[in-house]
Amino acid sequence: MQLALVVSIDETAFDAVAVRGSWAEGIRLAADLGYEGVELAIRDPRTVDARAIERTLRDSGLVTPAIGTGQAFLKEGLSLSDPDEGIRARAIERMEAHIHFAARFGAAVIIGLLRGRSIGSRAATASRLDASLRALLPIADREKVSILIEPINRYETDVLARIEDVLAVVDRMDSPALGVLADTFHMNIEETSIEQALRLAGQRLRLVHAADSNRLAPGWGHLDFTSIVGTLRDIGYRGFLSAEILPRPDPLAAARQTIAHLRPLLGKAAHPKGGYA
Amino acid sequence: MQLALVVSIDETAFDAVAVRGSWAEGIRLAADLGYEGVELAIRDPRTVDARAIERTLRDSGLVTPAIGTGQAFLKEGLSLSDPDEGIRARAIERMEAHIHFAARFGAAVIIGLLRGRSIGSRAATASRLDASLRALLPIADREKVSILIEPINRYETDVLARIEDVLAVVDRMDSPALGVLADTFHMNIEETSIEQALRLAGQRLRLVHAADSNRLAPGWGHLDFTSIVGTLRDIGYRGFLSAEILPRPDPLAAARQTIAHLRPLLGKAAHPKGGYA
Repeated sequence: MQLALVVSIDETAFDAVAVRGSWAEGIRLAADLGYEGVELAIRDPRTVDARAIERTLRDSGLVTPAIGTGQAFLKEGLSLSDPDEGIRARAIERMEAHIHFAARFGAAVIIGLLRGRSIGSRAATASRLDASLRALLPIADREKVSILIEPINRYETDVLARIEDVLAVVDRMDSPALGVLADTFHMNIEETSIEQALRLAGQRLRLVHAADSNRLAPGWGHLDFTSIVGTLRDIGYRGFLSAEILPRPDPLAAARQTIAHLRPLLGKAAHPKGGYA
Repeated sequence: MQLALVVSIDETAFDAVAVRGSWAEGIRLAADLGYEGVELAIRDPRTVDARAIERTLRDSGLVTPAIGTGQAFLKEGLSLSDPDEGIRARAIERMEAHIHFAARFGAAVIIGLLRGRSIGSRAATASRLDASLRALLPIADREKVSILIEPINRYETDVLARIEDVLAVVDRMDSPALGVLADTFHMNIEETSIEQALRLAGQRLRLVHAADSNRLAPGWGHLDFTSIVGTLRDIGYRGFLSAEILPRPDPLAAARQTIAHLRPLLGKAAHPKGGYA
């Protein structure tokens, strides 16, 4: 298992790469602290400079396990399950752009909030989401890009709150491109047992978001990451633990705490590359 | 420690007391299952028949530790911290009615969602809430009714999420009428440690809402109620554990599970009064 930090890329920040707090700063910070990867949160990949990101990643020695897509829902209202065909078509088109972008980086594409919320009946919403996935999965399969659905707690969406809900979609779709992303903060609210849910996901688990019970850095809430990482080891998980955490008390302190708490559990020595230590 | 079940009273249901699912049914169900109390959720006490409630409680041998007030926020938009003076005045007036009603039952009055949400700056919101409390606490004190502020998780309100936030208000108000209600579901999301937060509350803790991590009945999520009840015993808590839980898979099953899981931890034999067993 390796560690990643979520870094947000957006066109505003992109124009000011030298400014502290830009995405390039974020990538270099992650590398300096000893992370092996960065998960990139991107609203629209057509507005970012993929080459500049590639270069920064290469210079930092980092990989990117996944691309987050939730900004397209939050800022533009795109949804893969919307009853409005135009909105749904734009959401699918956006996902296609994400898949092509992700292919370049060997990354997966996450479906978080972009799945939308129930409008009309839950069955009709689920069926529209299924149809969108059926349009996207052949493209993802061709590009060898995983699409990962993330269970999200009841307050953020009423669609697919638990691991078992997402596994039902994965089984229904029967595509090698589709997998599950498990987020420990959401699981703390929704799962009867975090460990049992991870075991249930098993080989279908392709990414883990690590945040504590209060969404702060691991170790600053009450989740038992020793038990969680132990369970992940038991099920043969070899992917990333990606820190999607609140930047409190500040981004640097939170990113440092994540490494300090999780690295010893992974059974590897920390290997900071200098700076910030 | 004793057990209570939350029962919602509203004027619509009140006209049909013989109908299964009415508040009177709820009270009798609680008694039959072995609860010692019911917490009553009431939108406006001036619209309910206090005498009928008294009679039903007396016949059932139950007490009511507290009155919940959140419906006045959810259905009427009343808020004790609203910048609109008229809304704030109506919220204060509603609380006064609740205090007089509660006095009759020896119950406390809960401030949950009725505190409102931040509008404008957080400091201005807090200051308006303080002013409302300063108007209400002398009345509560005179009536010997406790006002209990309940920390509520970030998704439902951005005002007073943690025990320590509420304790700061309690200390600032310096009134014997003001105390804290700790809800285990909200604490699971917001507190660094549920047990430490309960210890911090100490003698200022006057009511506990017991719900599991997923808001189902205790035992159906991952909270450690053995540890929670042990901590309550350590701090000398002698009040109610009141089940504010989702009625899933159905109200009866949830109410039964709560008793089955919590009663053995309280160190008392169960004493169902027949029916439903």
